[in-house]
Amino acid sequence: MKLEMICTGEEVLSGQIVDTNAAWFADTMMNLGIELQLRLTVGDRLEDLVSIFRERSEHADLILVNGGLGPTSDDLSALAAAKVLEEELVEDTEWREYLEKFYQSLGREFPPSNLKQCLLPASAIRVDNPEGTAPGFRIKLNKAWLFFTPGVPVEFKTMVTEQFIPFMQKEFAAGQATRLYKLLTLGHGESTLADKLSELTLPDNVLLGYRPSAPHVEIKVFARGDDGIRQLPEVVEAIRARLDTAVVADNSPGIAWTVHEMLLAKQNTLSIAESCTGGMLCSQLVEFSGSSNYLHQGLVTYSNAAKQKILGVASDMLDTHGAVSPQTARAMAENVRALGDSDFGLATTGVAGPDGGTEDKPVGTVCIALADRDQCWVQTIQLNNRSRNLIRVLSCAVALDMLRRRLLQQNCLVPYSSIPSTVNNI
Amino acid sequence: MKLEMICTGEEVLSGQIVDTNAAWFADTMMNLGIELQLRLTVGDRLEDLVSIFRERSEHADLILVNGGLGPTSDDLSALAAAKVLEEELVEDTEWREYLEKFYQSLGREFPPSNLKQCLLPASAIRVDNPEGTAPGFRIKLNKAWLFFTPGVPVEFKTMVTEQFIPFMQKEFAAGQATRLYKLLTLGHGESTLADKLSELTLPDNVLLGYRPSAPHVEIKVFARGDDGIRQLPEVVEAIRARLDTAVVADNSPGIAWTVHEMLLAKQNTLSIAESCTGGMLCSQLVEFSGSSNYLHQGLVTYSNAAKQKILGVASDMLDTHGAVSPQTARAMAENVRALGDSDFGLATTGVAGPDGGTEDKPVGTVCIALADRDQCWVQTIQLNNRSRNLIRVLSCAVALDMLRRRLLQQNCLVPYSSIPSTVNNI
Repeated sequence: MKLEMICTGEEVLSGQIVDTNAAWFADTMMNLGIELQLRLTVGDRLEDLVSIFRERSEHADLILVNGGLGPTSDDLSALAAAKVLEEELVEDTEWREYLEKFYQSLGREFPPSNLKQCLLPASAIRVDNPEGTAPGFRIKLNKAWLFFTPGVPVEFKTMVTEQFIPFMQKEFAAGQATRLYKLLTLGHGESTLADKLSELTLPDNVLLGYRPSAPHVEIKVFARGDDGIRQLPEVVEAIRARLDTAVVADNSPGIAWTVHEMLLAKQNTLSIAESCTGGMLCSQLVEFSGSSNYLHQGLVTYSNAAKQKILGVASDMLDTHGAVSPQTARAMAENVRALGDSDFGLATTGVAGPDGGTEDKPVGTVCIALADRDQCWVQTIQLNNRSRNLIRVLSCAVALDMLRRRLLQQNCLVPYSSIPSTVNNI
Repeated sequence: MKLEMICTGEEVLSGQIVDTNAAWFADTMMNLGIELQLRLTVGDRLEDLVSIFRERSEHADLILVNGGLGPTSDDLSALAAAKVLEEELVEDTEWREYLEKFYQSLGREFPPSNLKQCLLPASAIRVDNPEGTAPGFRIKLNKAWLFFTPGVPVEFKTMVTEQFIPFMQKEFAAGQATRLYKLLTLGHGESTLADKLSELTLPDNVLLGYRPSAPHVEIKVFARGDDGIRQLPEVVEAIRARLDTAVVADNSPGIAWTVHEMLLAKQNTLSIAESCTGGMLCSQLVEFSGSSNYLHQGLVTYSNAAKQKILGVASDMLDTHGAVSPQTARAMAENVRALGDSDFGLATTGVAGPDGGTEDKPVGTVCIALADRDQCWVQTIQLNNRSRNLIRVLSCAVALDMLRRRLLQQNCLVPYSSIPSTVNNI
């Protein structure tokens, strides 16, 4: 089966938005062991859409078309499909009734522009959209099936998962059985990891891939066929052994998710005090439902006055050591833990830049402390040459990694090859 | 001039990396008033590259090719170019000497794999790469110029800026002048906005586009040529007048940025208390450098104990009205403002879901309060049928919009057609 993707929309072509749908789709196909052959991106011009649909339908077996199903006049996918089929657009009365009921249930009027979304080419087969008002549809053109999907990411992903993949698996030979195992690493560059793993002899049916996705580099171990799947656990263990402390999570969307799950499972509680990360650390945990079970509070004590008044950090400590110091980080972690009577206190204070750096404490200097009921661990990391956002993202990840290692009763201070760090025994 | 782009590389096609080069290039072209007609993404297969080069060279005048110039065996762009030209690859001795000197100056050996990067098709014209070891080059094929660039973003961007654009402007007629104006809206769906603007008569040289990007729908007003640019301000004002309170920012990356700039300009200070948004509101402001000038503190008082202990919310208020109530939101905003002696206090408390909803207060019920030194405004919004993340994102945006309107000395409580709300006069 030859699979291609056509992305439409002036805003995708013109770079107003980065095409995350396309990356997600290709990744999803790869996880199924199916290779995308070609991707085209075209703007909102009817004649371009028509000629591209015609041309690609002579090469591919299956084409996923994304975007152009919206209610506005620059959404032209259905019209182009009708034109290339030499058919009329016909109202799908079922979908119209569905939309009318939908707006009724919201107590809102049916916007006239949504009527356009009920118009499909005469021979098209509608594909339901549980997340939005634009239905998808598929048409047969020359040798290919063209499968039209909406551009809104949540609608697109749901339609691909629930409708496109089953259609593809039924209509075309299903791919070989495959399995994917993902290892998330923290604090080591892609080339460092690749060098460490280069001497590993992999079985024929197991492939390695790397995907940098801040704060992690993800290592994907992809097994194809029964043989590959059988050998997968052994390969994963060999990788883990070679990478020592670099792997921080398995098959997880990120370290925050992993720590969230661990805190829930262990029924431990947490309080957070943030300065340079400014609420990001707290927000990363609150993203997941159930975080209220362990999270007592998160305090963004941005000013020195707030550090004193709310957290009780002594003003002479701030004067002597400065707001960005291991001493202040320690006091923040210990005091926020005590304030909530939590099992753990986690604190960050640093220079996120681009201004505010000094010779002693350049931009990217971040002190991170973890306190439990008995002890406190502090380290200072140097995130040189990183953007403000990346400094904050990496600081959160290192803080979470300290807590994760402590929850596993391991040493919570480990070296990261791409992040110089100093352990502060204060 | 018909301009197209061909992106190569398995890692781009397979979604291992999001293609930011492509988005940057299209955006850069658009800012020059030049429209990209088509973008293709192909993997690292020689026969695919050759056939795509041949096919597109019959349609386009100028094709930017990105990627595939690296030292490894899956970098095939130069080989494919030679093949489609039916030429040999020839060593560019000048570039080889340049590389040898370069490695000498680093005190490193010349890696044999870099020799491959000195091989160009016989008729190719080399394009220098000041940032890396792979030269670019251009070839004439059929009616088109193909311009080959490296995939590493910094090398790519430098080559486009310093070499490709001057070549394009010299070789082809320079594009028309263009201008883009962006209006960010909040709380109204794309179709509602389009309906409101459908009766507007636009000049021929001014185009409208919509881009939903949570929490906003962005309206892009694109003017072409001197006539269009002259008429642009008038069109923008007409749009603004029709949309009433829907527009919340002009030419801004988001409402948080706009509020950040306003707080800096007005030298007002702010304290934040969050429950369901969990630090997201604070983090959105801390994203921008200089936020320490106005932000005193952000408290995520997730538990009732934290609301009492840190914010001094009375326990009988929590008992009587509940943590998610206009009364609690008001107390949070007033108390956090007083705690920091800030000009403003902003607070959110709600049910982010997916669990925790009741009949009275279903998932998506969020109470938002804004306090200044004299007054407090409170509203309850209903974000039904939204994900946990979207409930948090929209709550932050509405909170920021209240503050923004107050900073403009406008009524800070306005209706949003896609977000049912109640004003709480308590």
